Amino acid sequence: MARRRQIYEGKAKIIFEGPEPGTVVQYFKDDATAGNGAKSGVITGKGVLNNRISEYLMQRLGEMGIPTHFIRSLNMREQLVREVEIIPLEVVVRNVVAGSLSKRFGLPEGERLPRTLVEYYYKNDELNDPLISEEHIATFGWAHPQELEEIQSLALRVNDFLCGLFTGVGITLVDFKLEFGRLWQGDEMRIVLADEISPDNCRLWDSRTQEKMDKDRFRRDMGGVGEAYQEVARRLGILPEHGQGENVAAEGV
Amino acid sequence: MARRRQIYEGKAKIIFEGPEPGTVVQYFKDDATAGNGAKSGVITGKGVLNNRISEYLMQRLGEMGIPTHFIRSLNMREQLVREVEIIPLEVVVRNVVAGSLSKRFGLPEGERLPRTLVEYYYKNDELNDPLISEEHIATFGWAHPQELEEIQSLALRVNDFLCGLFTGVGITLVDFKLEFGRLWQGDEMRIVLADEISPDNCRLWDSRTQEKMDKDRFRRDMGGVGEAYQEVARRLGILPEHGQGENVAAEGV
Repeated sequence: MARRRQIYEGKAKIIFEGPEPGTVVQYFKDDATAGNGAKSGVITGKGVLNNRISEYLMQRLGEMGIPTHFIRSLNMREQLVREVEIIPLEVVVRNVVAGSLSKRFGLPEGERLPRTLVEYYYKNDELNDPLISEEHIATFGWAHPQELEEIQSLALRVNDFLCGLFTGVGITLVDFKLEFGRLWQGDEMRIVLADEISPDNCRLWDSRTQEKMDKDRFRRDMGGVGEAYQEVARRLGILPEHGQGENVAAEGV
Repeated sequence: MARRRQIYEGKAKIIFEGPEPGTVVQYFKDDATAGNGAKSGVITGKGVLNNRISEYLMQRLGEMGIPTHFIRSLNMREQLVREVEIIPLEVVVRNVVAGSLSKRFGLPEGERLPRTLVEYYYKNDELNDPLISEEHIATFGWAHPQELEEIQSLALRVNDFLCGLFTGVGITLVDFKLEFGRLWQGDEMRIVLADEISPDNCRLWDSRTQEKMDKDRFRRDMGGVGEAYQEVARRLGILPEHGQGENVAAEGV
């Protein structure tokens, strides 16, 4: 098999040309960064787990009629997805106060919000992904107001479903980040869910103990990062089996 | 404690006057009927399980910002709820073909629908709860078009969350029936979720084996009805403990 052309290398994934036109391959790395690259490290097995978790969540969302870029899993670290025009927004959905929301407004982490909050950040590493309002998005043309309406409505549906799913396995979905893309099919354009959904971009707390089961363990040097990701996969009933060509080591980071 | 006045006795519940104005008590019976009363029997412990399951689901939905009539559990068979003006609609949400939809359109049970289907039935035992369209609802004034829009939007949100929740515990939410009510607070009126959500009015299939875990076991004389309801509660992590004053027997029916 000829080596595929690399299109883009991000912090946690590499995007390769896909085998068919209109497709690309997402390769999930073990690399972890935080604070927009200020901290970096490796979480052994993370790529394998995130590939599997994101595949599972995208498939379940697809069954609910939420359009996604996901096509199929290729191997332990790679999935085939549709090539989309990524909308330069990080769409953050929050149910419980944590992270930057806690800092920005001086609110205690762990407080349930009076209603689900959708925030938009401009996806731009050089600017540190600044918080923006719907006005900025319309003014700078990052998304058409109608597209943004569709994005918000999809983000809230994803939240309803994922809150249910994680509640069912004893996990509180505190917040998460989504990305959307434009999928062109002839002259028709559809907004679809893109990127990944994994403990890299969700805050997941054990419902009983409030223990963190996500990338905050890495950001805050808490250790047990790999174990936490593995426990998320285990609860979802999708822990990759050992001896399938790649070992999912659970080394504390 | 003085005997409370009974307001209404339905097929599976009795409604009593509540301890405070604007409240009523829902008492969950073990009685089961099917075919609008054509078949009837007793499922020992069903009332206890449905009280607990409905409490749990209403609470989780309330946390998601879906307004419900639920206030609090009173005991193993009773819950305190807000007194609402019940809208005479049975709102059926379907993800997978089953039951009357299968019969009406000759579709095989178990086929996933191309999209979630919301059906309305006129809540009237004498007429056998006939299927109606939005036109009938507007024409006969059973709900204002704006109310119906709110009802549909709430029903779809309930579906998204419950599909996630049941997926998390290895159960497919095939379809379910909701009822809504008007809650008056001064001059303000809100549409809230009412009645109950339990295996009496949901079709729940084991995701792996497709085994039925709901009232269809009673309707179709399959036996193991109590066990199935109990297994739903167990998977949700809310099986009432034994020795709490009432035994939840799992007798096959």
